[in-house]
Amino acid sequence: MSDKIPVGILGATGAVGQNYIYLLQNHPWFEVAYVAASPRSAGKKYRECVESKWLHGANIPAGVADLVVEDANNPAKALGKCRFVFSALELDSKDEIKALENAYAAEGIAVVSNASAHRWTENVPMIIPEINADHLSVIDAQRKAHGWDTGFVAVKPNCSIQSYMIPVYALMKAGYEIKRMVVTTMQAVSGAGYPGVPSLDMIDNVVPYIGGEEEKTEKEPLKIFGRVEGGKIVNFEGLKIAAHCNRVPVIDGHTACVSLEFGAKKPSLAEIEKIWNDYRGLPQELGLPFAPAVPIVVRHEANRPQPRRDRNEDKGMAVSVGRLRECPVFDVRFVGLSHNTVRGAAGGGILNAELLKAKGYLK
Amino acid sequence: MSDKIPVGILGATGAVGQNYIYLLQNHPWFEVAYVAASPRSAGKKYRECVESKWLHGANIPAGVADLVVEDANNPAKALGKCRFVFSALELDSKDEIKALENAYAAEGIAVVSNASAHRWTENVPMIIPEINADHLSVIDAQRKAHGWDTGFVAVKPNCSIQSYMIPVYALMKAGYEIKRMVVTTMQAVSGAGYPGVPSLDMIDNVVPYIGGEEEKTEKEPLKIFGRVEGGKIVNFEGLKIAAHCNRVPVIDGHTACVSLEFGAKKPSLAEIEKIWNDYRGLPQELGLPFAPAVPIVVRHEANRPQPRRDRNEDKGMAVSVGRLRECPVFDVRFVGLSHNTVRGAAGGGILNAELLKAKGYLK
Amino acid sequence: MSDKIPVGILGATGAVGQNYIYLLQNHPWFEVAYVAASPRSAGKKYRECVESKWLHGANIPAGVADLVVEDANNPAKALGKCRFVFSALELDSKDEIKALENAYAAEGIAVVSNASAHRWTENVPMIIPEINADHLSVIDAQRKAHGWDTGFVAVKPNCSIQSYMIPVYALMKAGYEIKRMVVTTMQAVSGAGYPGVPSLDMIDNVVPYIGGEEEKTEKEPLKIFGRVEGGKIVNFEGLKIAAHCNRVPVIDGHTACVSLEFGAKKPSLAEIEKIWNDYRGLPQELGLPFAPAVPIVVRHEANRPQPRRDRNEDKGMAVSVGRLRECPVFDVRFVGLSHNTVRGAAGGGILNAELLKAKGYLK
Amino acid sequence: MSDKIPVGILGATGAVGQNYIYLLQNHPWFEVAYVAASPRSAGKKYRECVESKWLHGANIPAGVADLVVEDANNPAKALGKCRFVFSALELDSKDEIKALENAYAAEGIAVVSNASAHRWTENVPMIIPEINADHLSVIDAQRKAHGWDTGFVAVKPNCSIQSYMIPVYALMKAGYEIKRMVVTTMQAVSGAGYPGVPSLDMIDNVVPYIGGEEEKTEKEPLKIFGRVEGGKIVNFEGLKIAAHCNRVPVIDGHTACVSLEFGAKKPSLAEIEKIWNDYRGLPQELGLPFAPAVPIVVRHEANRPQPRRDRNEDKGMAVSVGRLRECPVFDVRFVGLSHNTVRGAAGGGILNAELLKAKGYLK
Repeated sequence: MSDKIPVGILGATGAVGQNYIYLLQNHPWFEVAYVAASPRSAGKKYRECVESKWLHGANIPAGVADLVVEDANNPAKALGKCRFVFSALELDSKDEIKALENAYAAEGIAVVSNASAHRWTENVPMIIPEINADHLSVIDAQRKAHGWDTGFVAVKPNCSIQSYMIPVYALMKAGYEIKRMVVTTMQAVSGAGYPGVPSLDMIDNVVPYIGGEEEKTEKEPLKIFGRVEGGKIVNFEGLKIAAHCNRVPVIDGHTACVSLEFGAKKPSLAEIEKIWNDYRGLPQELGLPFAPAVPIVVRHEANRPQPRRDRNEDKGMAVSVGRLRECPVFDVRFVGLSHNTVRGAAGGGILNAELLKAKGYLK
Repeated sequence: MSDKIPVGILGATGAVGQNYIYLLQNHPWFEVAYVAASPRSAGKKYRECVESKWLHGANIPAGVADLVVEDANNPAKALGKCRFVFSALELDSKDEIKALENAYAAEGIAVVSNASAHRWTENVPMIIPEINADHLSVIDAQRKAHGWDTGFVAVKPNCSIQSYMIPVYALMKAGYEIKRMVVTTMQAVSGAGYPGVPSLDMIDNVVPYIGGEEEKTEKEPLKIFGRVEGGKIVNFEGLKIAAHCNRVPVIDGHTACVSLEFGAKKPSLAEIEKIWNDYRGLPQELGLPFAPAVPIVVRHEANRPQPRRDRNEDKGMAVSVGRLRECPVFDVRFVGLSHNTVRGAAGGGILNAELLKAKGYLK
Repeated sequence: MSDKIPVGILGATGAVGQNYIYLLQNHPWFEVAYVAASPRSAGKKYRECVESKWLHGANIPAGVADLVVEDANNPAKALGKCRFVFSALELDSKDEIKALENAYAAEGIAVVSNASAHRWTENVPMIIPEINADHLSVIDAQRKAHGWDTGFVAVKPNCSIQSYMIPVYALMKAGYEIKRMVVTTMQAVSGAGYPGVPSLDMIDNVVPYIGGEEEKTEKEPLKIFGRVEGGKIVNFEGLKIAAHCNRVPVIDGHTACVSLEFGAKKPSLAEIEKIWNDYRGLPQELGLPFAPAVPIVVRHEANRPQPRRDRNEDKGMAVSVGRLRECPVFDVRFVGLSHNTVRGAAGGGILNAELLKAKGYLK
Repeated sequence: MSDKIPVGILGATGAVGQNYIYLLQNHPWFEVAYVAASPRSAGKKYRECVESKWLHGANIPAGVADLVVEDANNPAKALGKCRFVFSALELDSKDEIKALENAYAAEGIAVVSNASAHRWTENVPMIIPEINADHLSVIDAQRKAHGWDTGFVAVKPNCSIQSYMIPVYALMKAGYEIKRMVVTTMQAVSGAGYPGVPSLDMIDNVVPYIGGEEEKTEKEPLKIFGRVEGGKIVNFEGLKIAAHCNRVPVIDGHTACVSLEFGAKKPSLAEIEKIWNDYRGLPQELGLPFAPAVPIVVRHEANRPQPRRDRNEDKGMAVSVGRLRECPVFDVRFVGLSHNTVRGAAGGGILNAELLKAKGYLK
């Protein structure tokens, strides 16, 4: 019998839920032992629910295919089956998701969430482990506020910002203030789930709009770069971001064209490259299983990074940057790329869980 | 017998050359009477040279298919056959193209060029007819400098800037200074000609680099917005542009995400929209055959303009703009789109020729 | 005031309905005067219902944009508004569609349908006007059976068979029996409507399956090649068809690879080509507005027809054939191509209506 | 120091050459120790030659990146550097390739070739290891005829036939004669190398033609199913094949729609499935490193196999089949799929080399 931690997946039949199940195969610490979805799926075997829409080439992992799907609306069902859950819930309203994630936490089941519902709850940490692992400390205040013991909610930010947040933070941490930033993203269709973006919109086309994405891109970094104060996260205020978000005919991998304006102190291109090459965060120090060895991979080819060629860097968990050069309007510009369904979604959630485990929050 | 002006096409077998021939079918003023290409094609019928690589669905226009291709390196061959030429020359060096275009002009044959070779020659006008028709006046100085009589060279700018230049100029002309501009383009593969971009680079991918394109995008507007002084064009100096140019899997239609910073006087979004809706240039006043009735088409759908749906607006000659909104970093931002092989290449060249004809430069 | 025949569109907000509205702009005989869809859309202006999902680049035709959408389930609403309807109904069951189409007919409103519901009703003609215009005669029996006066139902076959049916029939009509046929189709995504095929299934992929399509491909030709007997259509029995239907990342245009086995009498390749070039049907004789001048366009390039280059042949109404050559297993093989949303759907429906009008069935 | 067999790659800078280098990383028996290409590349480091056109995401394998590229036209250069070579030569004529491959063999260096030049040389075996491993015996006659000692040439067939040859052979071996076969392929762009197929031909398009492919598809199986007689391979004559070969917008993975006609004895669908599931060839018995554990993977989903989801089955070496069903024209039909650059090219070449090693031909 396995001595791995049994975990549950909420929203297990959707695209993100499938990715969790796919990526958690052979995970050294965690094992999928519980799958929950909408009442419509409840009572069926996982295999039956997803067979015709399984997004990966390989078969459904054997250990999960025969699990009976439970009703995600009933947190009590999960008791004794899993120690924490990854939430990939897709409900009609954010309020419903918040309430349901809280209900799991109230049952003592920690929630590591991909959903956007709790991202702006002040005592819920929104984590990119290489950046703001210290924000986990608000979990104590969160538990206290709710009277929860082992339960809590932690979230990850939107996939669209992952392609440049670690590189930008590395520069800030090295002492270079960043004042303004214009970002244009070219985002993969997998970011919209399945069925998601119609092929009639994507063949021979680009859609220069993704609902809600620009707002997230402009605001979420401010919380991630924020500081903990009195059990809450206080947003960073020193950075202005403008985002143009586009959908392009790419399966996986979000690409971002970024122009940065520094404060008075400006690094040279060589300094920037050295900072990126040398950057390591807590996941690297702790040797977390899903941590990329080198979180920022600097490419020198004129035409890289490209989504198809670079998204799988270090199993999809590293961020690739390239085309670092001066910007005629601001100071520097570059292209960033990350795998949106790995680093940007399920893989990022797993890394969060690993960090939470390593820091003692998941018992 | 036709009383249309007989015109020649240099580089007639390439992608741009084919577009000229395609678009000039049934033109009310011009008729393709002469086709020239590399020595390798010379002596063959046009049909034989392009049949296996004809890029359009329809058949090769009947009047052109049976023309014998001449050697483009021999301008004298064109004498008596055509009154002016559209140059879509693709030679190894810009110097060769310059020399050859000059040689045609020296023979008395005006050259309306798509090639980039002469774009920075001070007495060669680089025209977007809705913007800088007044630059044509340098042709007199050009002729004088070379001792040419009827010959001259006029060029059009790069396709990548066409998606936003008229909208930006309309605002400038309405009295709003524009100080800085960050542009990210998503450019169609047809911009690279044929065979051009390999499909191995474009399926499930984006290439965040196009050789030379960012430089052109940042500099060419400065000449177009420049002023004529002493028979030369003096570049505009009041605008800084940063460009990120990307290749995306789209057949035709360049999309641009643009953020603008105005000077002290800033228009409201409503004012901008009115300026764009009302804008008309000289081609509209003159009623030139290829002029779009409304050069700037403002769209209000949240997710438009899109290349496949909007590139053919007014036969591919109008520029579509949409998503006009405030910019958190600069003042406003929007998405611009134009058909790169029509407005941005052959169609733009034809409109230039029509303007030249209307202004008396082509006799 | 227009003296065109006012027509209605059932299912006007869907992809096929939109195509009808798009293609009927400026039709010389018909004018869209009535639009009906699901109760959910009823009472809204057409513009409001489709603005965010309008599939064409151009704007919604002005005359239709402001029509109020009626509930398609209420045929009486259409009385006095239109003389006949094009049905692009998408209801849950074929029985519901049959009943509703009959209800329109019972009200005296003829139904020219794209839906598959009535394709196997013996006294409903399934028409490709270049092939079986004589099947219209069963309309008299149909009217009599139902006690209908002006109303009736006529249908068109599935889009997937249009790429080769006219070429195959032309050979049969020229006296060459065809015994067996293996067809592999590569079908465009527009055939599945909107949202239709998810882009996650179509980027860098092919799906070798389309639900129900192979059955339709194998059976519908037998009715079309059938004969009228006693007011019913009796299926042809002399042909066996095997179909492999695939979905490919193409917007419009179904391509078919066809191998044919003739009976004892076998035409040469040259004879086949001559038969195809010379073939004209009733729509050509009658000069119907949507009839292609030449219904079968034979191409000689080694690599044609191709969907993007050939689908718009004669405004999308002609069938292109190419690669005619001997077959090592059967007798000959070729590639056929037609525009699935024009010839294969709304355009084919309009041609059917024109034929019905010309033959006196639409008063 | 490694005790692996040092191998060379001819045509190392092309697409197939790159694939060999990519796939041979960490091979348990072989190690790339020699790279040769055209004189143009000779003398440069491998990294310099391919950096801008490296087709894989990962970096160029460290051990190969710094090898100096040699002139492939000079076999003597390879002496002492490698024990055998994989040939991915792309010369202007097949005769040149034949002569050069022979020259390597004459130097004592065995040639395991992907090139088509020697496929029809009677004493050169054309191997799919799961089918005709016994054909290797003609190598003795080949050596004798040329007076070669350790050298020889062995080839693999075209990629387009790999998606169904093992499944078809498994049925033949089980005692079911196959008389006729109609195959329609939908082939990936990587099959044409790099730059290969222009994106202008592949976005929103299908090209129903691949030069020379149908001929190979119809003839090569006859040699593979042939028998050895007097040191030569005598082609099989009992099977007629008709092929329609198409290029589709897919990166990797050739899909084939196959209809089969059996002889008098016809298997049921259940028998066929059992035969496929149970089939194992010599590579499986010998446990060769690149052999898929199960060479034929039978899928039951209605819409599989699909290239993007199934091409990587067993590291790209297994063939996936699905949609097995009766054929209204012949007996049965199915869809086959294989990874064209792994099983169909470099991976297949490596498996051939492993077989040759295991059978004692590579010392």
